[in-house]
Amino acid sequence: MTRDGAPLALLVSYDGTSLHGWQFQPNCTTVQGLLQEALDKVHGVAPGTVSIVGSGRTDAGVHALGQVASYYPPTPREPATLLAALFRLLPEEVRVLDAWRAAPGFHACRSAAGKIYRYRIVNRPLILPFENRWAWHQRQPLDLGAMRAAAAQLVGTHDFAAFATAGGQSETTVRTLRRLDVVEHTGGIVEIEAEADGFLYRMVRNLTGLLVEIGRGRRPAADAARVLASLDRGTAGMTAPARGLCLVRVLY
Amino acid sequence: MTRDGAPLALLVSYDGTSLHGWQFQPNCTTVQGLLQEALDKVHGVAPGTVSIVGSGRTDAGVHALGQVASYYPPTPREPATLLAALFRLLPEEVRVLDAWRAAPGFHACRSAAGKIYRYRIVNRPLILPFENRWAWHQRQPLDLGAMRAAAAQLVGTHDFAAFATAGGQSETTVRTLRRLDVVEHTGGIVEIEAEADGFLYRMVRNLTGLLVEIGRGRRPAADAARVLASLDRGTAGMTAPARGLCLVRVLY
Repeated sequence: MTRDGAPLALLVSYDGTSLHGWQFQPNCTTVQGLLQEALDKVHGVAPGTVSIVGSGRTDAGVHALGQVASYYPPTPREPATLLAALFRLLPEEVRVLDAWRAAPGFHACRSAAGKIYRYRIVNRPLILPFENRWAWHQRQPLDLGAMRAAAAQLVGTHDFAAFATAGGQSETTVRTLRRLDVVEHTGGIVEIEAEADGFLYRMVRNLTGLLVEIGRGRRPAADAARVLASLDRGTAGMTAPARGLCLVRVLY
Repeated sequence: MTRDGAPLALLVSYDGTSLHGWQFQPNCTTVQGLLQEALDKVHGVAPGTVSIVGSGRTDAGVHALGQVASYYPPTPREPATLLAALFRLLPEEVRVLDAWRAAPGFHACRSAAGKIYRYRIVNRPLILPFENRWAWHQRQPLDLGAMRAAAAQLVGTHDFAAFATAGGQSETTVRTLRRLDVVEHTGGIVEIEAEADGFLYRMVRNLTGLLVEIGRGRRPAADAARVLASLDRGTAGMTAPARGLCLVRVLY
């Protein structure tokens, strides 16, 4: 396998409900594992040959609309051929939406300049069976004004240690949160859209957990700044469940 | 169990993907079975006591937004209490959206004056993993004009024998199809909306199958009238898969 040529990049969408997250694990169904297994077949190489990198890991149960992966192909393949073959080989929960030749040196993780995540909440007394897989159900009306006031305190370049669950591998917990919007849609759908240069382990779910506690009136909006300043995960409250989270786009 | 009092009615929504349809079957997970089991508990009666009727059967894999069921409660229960208990007892795929005291003699099936079904098609080269469960994927662009011309030939009171799969239990195959609309939504979503006084076994899936064959250009639009007049299921072509179909509303 040569690193001389251009890497191939893939745009990947998945329903994470019954997957054990992005990261390869033996004896578990993971997105990376499924893709590598399919790519070994597409390139006609022995199982375990192709190794891909994602823009970052997503946890078990988390979804993606636009995850990006890259790898050095062991044999030449046209992107269109690759796409058609992956469509046949992958299970329905994982769809490769696009494939292209990336610039030399492109690396799905190290080249990323930012990411956009969306967290979906169904905020009405009843949730439909069709919404369950991709949303968190909040039966009581959330105070979106308080949530927006709290979100405004979190946007910017800060040490987000209070929002990082232990187990991450980052050298620093400083990140630039460019946007943390609380968007109300029709029919009781509330979405939290977060854009940053990068996110810490479970950061979006931890931010969402705090915003929802504030929205429920359990904590004042001013708690957001206090939690941020504490640098202490113990102060920040609950972690929102994985099912509501979706990696929407990776920025390069 | 007395039939003197008023029956209770339930508005039921379900994701049929992993259910074996509406109709109770021993050793299978069915909507009727799940509801009866939960209602036995709610009413504090022995398993197998409560017996409900639905507006009609839906096949394995078919969904419902607004199925209606009715039964005579063996013990008095407030609709609100019932709703809260069913929310706790039922799996996520089945949600009871409303419960109310119906008029004496109300029967979810016999009192029904009509039904509305919707069949969803994703008509673009790629389908997202989030769409798979509730839609049929058609990669090639469908000719919606031809489909609408065909649909217009089917609306009205006719003998729909050519669109009834064997195995139904109706005495007559004459139905009044009030509406068969081919609706185009943004993003390549095409929905076929069918309203009738009642539908034969697999009738919506059979109508959809023919419309899609016409939309693909495999048959002329004029075939719709010919198939209808033939009264022969053998002429009508394919049956669309269950996953795209949803019982939207029952009319009383």
